[in-house]
Amino acid sequence: MPHPLYQEYKEQMQRIADLRFSAALLQWDQETYMPAGSAAARARQVATLSETSHQLFVSDKLGSLLHSLHGNPQLTDTEQKNIELSLDDYQKQKKYDSAFVRLLSETCSRAFNHWQEARKKDDFSLFEKDLTDLVALKKQEASLLGYESHPYDALLNEHDRGSNVATLDQVFGGIEEPLKNLLHRILEKEPPDDSFIKKHYTHQAQWDWGLKLLTDIGFDLKTGRQDLSTHPFTVSFATTDVRVTTRVDENDLGNMTWSCLHEGGHALYEQGLPEDQYGLPLGEAASFAVHESQSRLWENCVGRGREYWFFYYPELQKRFAESLNGVGLDDFLCGINRVQPSLIRTEADELTYHFHIIIRYEIEKRLLSGDIQVADIPGFWNEMYKKGMGVVPPNNREGCLQDVHWSHGSFGYFPTYSTGSMMAAQLWERFLKEEAGFASELSAGNTGKLLSWLRKSVHIFGRRFTTNELCSRITGETLNPGYLLKYLEEKYTRIYQLS
Amino acid sequence: MPHPLYQEYKEQMQRIADLRFSAALLQWDQETYMPAGSAAARARQVATLSETSHQLFVSDKLGSLLHSLHGNPQLTDTEQKNIELSLDDYQKQKKYDSAFVRLLSETCSRAFNHWQEARKKDDFSLFEKDLTDLVALKKQEASLLGYESHPYDALLNEHDRGSNVATLDQVFGGIEEPLKNLLHRILEKEPPDDSFIKKHYTHQAQWDWGLKLLTDIGFDLKTGRQDLSTHPFTVSFATTDVRVTTRVDENDLGNMTWSCLHEGGHALYEQGLPEDQYGLPLGEAASFAVHESQSRLWENCVGRGREYWFFYYPELQKRFAESLNGVGLDDFLCGINRVQPSLIRTEADELTYHFHIIIRYEIEKRLLSGDIQVADIPGFWNEMYKKGMGVVPPNNREGCLQDVHWSHGSFGYFPTYSTGSMMAAQLWERFLKEEAGFASELSAGNTGKLLSWLRKSVHIFGRRFTTNELCSRITGETLNPGYLLKYLEEKYTRIYQLS
Repeated sequence: MPHPLYQEYKEQMQRIADLRFSAALLQWDQETYMPAGSAAARARQVATLSETSHQLFVSDKLGSLLHSLHGNPQLTDTEQKNIELSLDDYQKQKKYDSAFVRLLSETCSRAFNHWQEARKKDDFSLFEKDLTDLVALKKQEASLLGYESHPYDALLNEHDRGSNVATLDQVFGGIEEPLKNLLHRILEKEPPDDSFIKKHYTHQAQWDWGLKLLTDIGFDLKTGRQDLSTHPFTVSFATTDVRVTTRVDENDLGNMTWSCLHEGGHALYEQGLPEDQYGLPLGEAASFAVHESQSRLWENCVGRGREYWFFYYPELQKRFAESLNGVGLDDFLCGINRVQPSLIRTEADELTYHFHIIIRYEIEKRLLSGDIQVADIPGFWNEMYKKGMGVVPPNNREGCLQDVHWSHGSFGYFPTYSTGSMMAAQLWERFLKEEAGFASELSAGNTGKLLSWLRKSVHIFGRRFTTNELCSRITGETLNPGYLLKYLEEKYTRIYQLS
Repeated sequence: MPHPLYQEYKEQMQRIADLRFSAALLQWDQETYMPAGSAAARARQVATLSETSHQLFVSDKLGSLLHSLHGNPQLTDTEQKNIELSLDDYQKQKKYDSAFVRLLSETCSRAFNHWQEARKKDDFSLFEKDLTDLVALKKQEASLLGYESHPYDALLNEHDRGSNVATLDQVFGGIEEPLKNLLHRILEKEPPDDSFIKKHYTHQAQWDWGLKLLTDIGFDLKTGRQDLSTHPFTVSFATTDVRVTTRVDENDLGNMTWSCLHEGGHALYEQGLPEDQYGLPLGEAASFAVHESQSRLWENCVGRGREYWFFYYPELQKRFAESLNGVGLDDFLCGINRVQPSLIRTEADELTYHFHIIIRYEIEKRLLSGDIQVADIPGFWNEMYKKGMGVVPPNNREGCLQDVHWSHGSFGYFPTYSTGSMMAAQLWERFLKEEAGFASELSAGNTGKLLSWLRKSVHIFGRRFTTNELCSRITGETLNPGYLLKYLEEKYTRIYQLS
């Protein structure tokens, strides 16, 4: 029997989780099925759930439970870790008042709707007001949370404990030049033909194909499902209810295929969290960076590799015979790994992807410090794309309106796509060393060993370790961007036959 | 500007509504999309939302607001009515403690899952334990709420204010014999051929057809949607978000067609409630009986009538040419109105339907009084069907496991299907008198005048009037079963050419 106070703490936390997960379901519904006319009612419903769960979390009742349990030697290790993390969260959440939580939630709901409209009509001005409000709220949040050097630090830390501008400036600074050099060497070569990707692939056949890839890597439909949405995402309401969404473009095979593997990576993580820790910190993911390491690992290290397609390509070709007629496995691999500066992040290759992230990082940093204003975003965005990759968006829809994140109030999220990719490369190298025979298993379509390894190395620990602690435990060193550079160098040397 | 205390009351009520509607969305999701493996987590999430909204509702804060506002002459009529109804609800809800609310919610979630399983496997024993728990909880609820003569009265009153065993015994007693007589006269005639209903109708074509019927009567897809579920139902999370569900059987045209019109009737009511009364009593439906009057009116008075099909049948025949080839309009009308004793309530004709209801009523009454136990249900059910209609279910799936209601903890709901039908007939006669030209409008596919009339006569008032008050206002007399008898007599005399 657990300590009676711990039992009380657990029950309280689980009730709070019930409210949080309910809010998440309302949001999932908003992005998948909700009739458009109900945006206002939904906004207030989500706000009430957020506010209510916040009020319960910062209640004196939970506070005094946490204080009395903290450091109690009668608790097990796991229990102590939960208390330690909850106390940390509690002290952080105490800095917000209910009105702020409600306002932020309502502003996000409104912003999401206006972002959708702005994107559809390619009219940034429709989103500008809400985004301005959100940036103001995020600045306020940074002050509430506190930071040492840069207001953005407070938000980065929320997505990846310990992350800050100083470190990220260094990390991004460290990869930018090597990636640019690699890019230049690649662009000197004849580009592979990737026109087959944009041929016609029917909706239903793509849907079936994506669902097959998703379930083949281990996504369990008894405890999960896939739906359509404007922007693919993964959300979970319990380890027994994990939902991914995707989008299908009949003139683009890539969208669906790699979004299923990407969201699938997120989803496997959520399905692998310890079910008995429902509502407690150890039942949550370690960080956004670790989450992205899972999605990018399956999407790229696995899903853009030769071995994977050695098995899956014949099946793909059979399903879409007309569009893939005459495209051999090598042509296919070169095509899906074609490197080229581009406008849309989610469709970018593994190399230039990081330029997309760096641009968003630089913009968020300046928005938070006040160096630029929301009205400056479109111009600044286009300038950065021109400078960084030599491409200029013809409109804001393909520019600064392409991503959903800001409309969700997510600032500080984007950098984790890059750090997650770095961690993915680091884990991948380690895993291949431990499982020397995996390449041949993968060529036979068996990914089970990778999932088992991730389950026991990453998933099962929940939030017990930080990103760096996990990296150290698994690979013997903290996050090291060198692995990503090495992985990309090797990959493109092979594909582009670089010298 | 409203009274500041009223403003406070309104805000509090709307927050409670946010929680209630969120719980409803979780339940909708459970019956439409939720992965099967998450039943346990969902049960606790719904229970937490129910408990939290209950706690807010019975809080001293709301209580003292209600007491200080009650009878305040500074309030408008509408405001006074809201306060009066809320105070009534408050005093009733105060009788429940949180633990009871949570337990009831959790038991219902479990019962729903076990009912589904029991029905699938045709094994009543899988549902028996939960149903026994539910009946015990419902008895407890009846004691908490209080009643004068019969414990069932307390639950009947929850579905239709003022309804009780004494009145219903009289109402059902009054229609049983006339209906039996009519039935006997009908069964002496040659039964019309209705075999076309069970021909093959493809899923997608039925779906499109149902959605057309639904939107043609005025269901607005900007503020509503339709999905699939085991058992069709309507639920609303705001007047701007009303959801209906249906089921499609490829070997039965009837299921889909009349479920769309039935749920459509419910949904039009919900979409027609005053939006500015969100979360307040006047933003809610008058009663379950009035709700059923809306669904039964569209399903039967409109949707099984000659004029409606005069317009729609050619279109239906075009869409399902193969199955309806050679079936003329008159054959169709006779077929869809064929009267025969049967096993499944939702597929019953308008006449024998009421025997199905009376049987459930008699069972619920005896369960609540303790005259029978849950274990007796299958036997008692079959006996009643044999006695009442001369048919015996070959299994419990087509017998006592057919309806979802008990698994939702709904006891006292079934009688409103009959009283709702009575009210529908009463409203229908009145409406046809007021709108003498409607028959010809209907023959041209125009139902708009009926919707406008229901909007202004019923929908707009929300919970302002009881069932009987509404009937009186609209038709000059309280609910009178005579109209249903007259409607059925006239209808079947025509169809069966009775003398």
